[in-house]
Amino acid sequence: MGGYSFHVENVQICVIMVGLPARGKSLIAQKIVRYLTWLSVPAKCFNVGNYRRIETAQPTADFFDVNNPEGERLRKIAAEAAITDMFRWYEEDKGVVAILDATNTTKARRDWVLDLCRRRSVEPLFVESWCDDEDLIMQNIIDVKTTSPDYVGQDPEQAALDFRNRIRNYEKVYETIDDTDLTYVKLINVGSQVIINRIQSYLESRIVYYLMNLHIKPRCIWLSRHGESMFNVDGKIGGDSDLSPRGREYARQLPAITRKSVGDQPLTVWTSTLKRTQQTAKYLPYRQLTWKALDELDGGQCDGLTYEEIECRYPEDFAARDENKYEYRYPGGESYRDVVIRLEPIIMELERQENIMIVTHQAVLRCIYAYFMNVPQDQSPWMEVPLHTLIKLEPKAYGTEVTRMKADIPAVSTYREKGQSTLKK
Amino acid sequence: MGGYSFHVENVQICVIMVGLPARGKSLIAQKIVRYLTWLSVPAKCFNVGNYRRIETAQPTADFFDVNNPEGERLRKIAAEAAITDMFRWYEEDKGVVAILDATNTTKARRDWVLDLCRRRSVEPLFVESWCDDEDLIMQNIIDVKTTSPDYVGQDPEQAALDFRNRIRNYEKVYETIDDTDLTYVKLINVGSQVIINRIQSYLESRIVYYLMNLHIKPRCIWLSRHGESMFNVDGKIGGDSDLSPRGREYARQLPAITRKSVGDQPLTVWTSTLKRTQQTAKYLPYRQLTWKALDELDGGQCDGLTYEEIECRYPEDFAARDENKYEYRYPGGESYRDVVIRLEPIIMELERQENIMIVTHQAVLRCIYAYFMNVPQDQSPWMEVPLHTLIKLEPKAYGTEVTRMKADIPAVSTYREKGQSTLKK
Repeated sequence: MGGYSFHVENVQICVIMVGLPARGKSLIAQKIVRYLTWLSVPAKCFNVGNYRRIETAQPTADFFDVNNPEGERLRKIAAEAAITDMFRWYEEDKGVVAILDATNTTKARRDWVLDLCRRRSVEPLFVESWCDDEDLIMQNIIDVKTTSPDYVGQDPEQAALDFRNRIRNYEKVYETIDDTDLTYVKLINVGSQVIINRIQSYLESRIVYYLMNLHIKPRCIWLSRHGESMFNVDGKIGGDSDLSPRGREYARQLPAITRKSVGDQPLTVWTSTLKRTQQTAKYLPYRQLTWKALDELDGGQCDGLTYEEIECRYPEDFAARDENKYEYRYPGGESYRDVVIRLEPIIMELERQENIMIVTHQAVLRCIYAYFMNVPQDQSPWMEVPLHTLIKLEPKAYGTEVTRMKADIPAVSTYREKGQSTLKK
Repeated sequence: MGGYSFHVENVQICVIMVGLPARGKSLIAQKIVRYLTWLSVPAKCFNVGNYRRIETAQPTADFFDVNNPEGERLRKIAAEAAITDMFRWYEEDKGVVAILDATNTTKARRDWVLDLCRRRSVEPLFVESWCDDEDLIMQNIIDVKTTSPDYVGQDPEQAALDFRNRIRNYEKVYETIDDTDLTYVKLINVGSQVIINRIQSYLESRIVYYLMNLHIKPRCIWLSRHGESMFNVDGKIGGDSDLSPRGREYARQLPAITRKSVGDQPLTVWTSTLKRTQQTAKYLPYRQLTWKALDELDGGQCDGLTYEEIECRYPEDFAARDENKYEYRYPGGESYRDVVIRLEPIIMELERQENIMIVTHQAVLRCIYAYFMNVPQDQSPWMEVPLHTLIKLEPKAYGTEVTRMKADIPAVSTYREKGQSTLKK
């Protein structure tokens, strides 16, 4: 196995979500999948609601009443279908972490899932979202009534009322987890208290640490590459060169572009240790932090060369890099996978923080962008991230909104298409 | 601020230990200090028992009886003295994390400490060690009766009995933490359950994650540099060269040397991604993992040069490195501080694991060794770690035992003393 990896154990984990409707379970489930996928851990979410909707598209609250045997039967069938697909995924697609996204609010239901997991030697990790903060629940209800397929095309007020009744039907039978023999995390009011019980494996501990650090306060992240550098102008990779005159112009305009987007909100700026990011950020009137982990992908022996020179001197490496750019490691340098691993603490810290602006390098920016936008690994190294452009990311309940603001300052293009020889130019 | 750091906030934290005697509080306190100090976060432990012993060296159990007003008075004076010194340390020595190591078992006592912290704008983080596992408690009592200065020179059986009575006196008044407005971590039976409440800052979250990962099962860690490499023979730094003939001989002998020390215990071997560590480990009959984070300190532009060449080409850098070897960063490369930061996940994983053997490089090995042996940062880059030597570390309650096993295979010395010019040789 090459490189540092988050999947060092031969273990399969089933994250079993637990909690009443409108407790943010699906949001948590999707964030876990995104985080693990980004770290190359095969992860997938199985949402029982999606299976139930195949048979029962838009049920009313009484469908979820414990005294409705037909509702009960259909819901059990949906759960069985989700779990069957889940076990097939472990086997056929070498799945590692499945997330079973359902309410699982009764001990009986959880025991049933537990038994199925144990028979297949899958480690169960229960993640309960418990919440009695009325504001948080109300916010979730508003989200659900506007986004859930269960209420598409319905009157929003009617939907909210029905959804409240559905929650009440679940509340009648809800039993919180208290069996200390189980492996579980209980998130109380979105992390204001966290109870962690019998966490064993490394991967479990990483999932738990990630969950501990999540918050749901609204905030934005701004990304920018450094301004055009002298190495950019010369077509060289790596190095630690100064900004070009056009790059310096971008640095001078960046405060105004930023202010237009950020307004009066507080902001912290993160740069790498390399001169070109610090020169780019130097006029920004905000608190600044320097991170070595934000330095550009290390080109090793190719550092300071042009693509032409690399293609001449290392033709096989040049072709191999095109073949699998995510895994390709420069001789003595790094691969995109290596960069993702060293960026993990940055992502964790981004999850903890509020407004952050990151001024960094092409490859690093692609990796950070891939995390927020759920870009597959084979595509992320090929994304176009032009110079002299500020990108705003706004995480929402069901995805991240992107805005790009281009400064009117020309710059060289550092983008090279897959399979494009630099020699034939 | 240069580089990635764990102390990015302008915050002072007081970790207030809570728990009955023999619950491992002092061990936890010392581990937090060691971990943070290694990460360059100024941390210090203030043990109230040490202050109390100035006046009352070897009290009997009744000294700790809540109905003994004189004992109560003397214990309060000791706590006051410890806290006074603690606040002086924050101010005069720019302290960041102080650990107040005492029982703090009553709500009244905790409120008193809390109030003092709040007046000084120090963030209180309570760490409660709660334990009802009789085996764990008994093990701690045995440790205490053999190591505590309170019982030096006394009959061990008598000491154990008195200590049990002391615990009983504390049990009478013990109130566990349940105020959800406080920031606290409750470790139940050494991490089998962990309750985390209102953790706010990044530094708090790191301390909590570290505590989550601690275990107390006995285990050992073996460290070895790679065998002598061709670059070692040529006096060059860095690179990715093969082993020399003598280095290959070390690799062949390593399984026998290891087996003599490890016996039949299970073991996992970690190497770097560089050839010389993998060639060294290749005959070891254990599970092997490769970590990029274990690669040698990156010499940047000096990679592949001899010390003579570095001194010729970069005389100022050469001198600067001697001046502050821990902070010195090679142009385009790394400092010892950078290596420590990228090793942090390795240390965290080492805390989680049982028997591990690490085959790595001189600078990396110095950093790992410094963590376990509490070596100050200005000294760790100057430690002698000879080639062809297996080092065994055995963590104990009050320190780490070291055994060195030297293979009978000559190797060049890669050690250069401080201030020693390579040109005058």
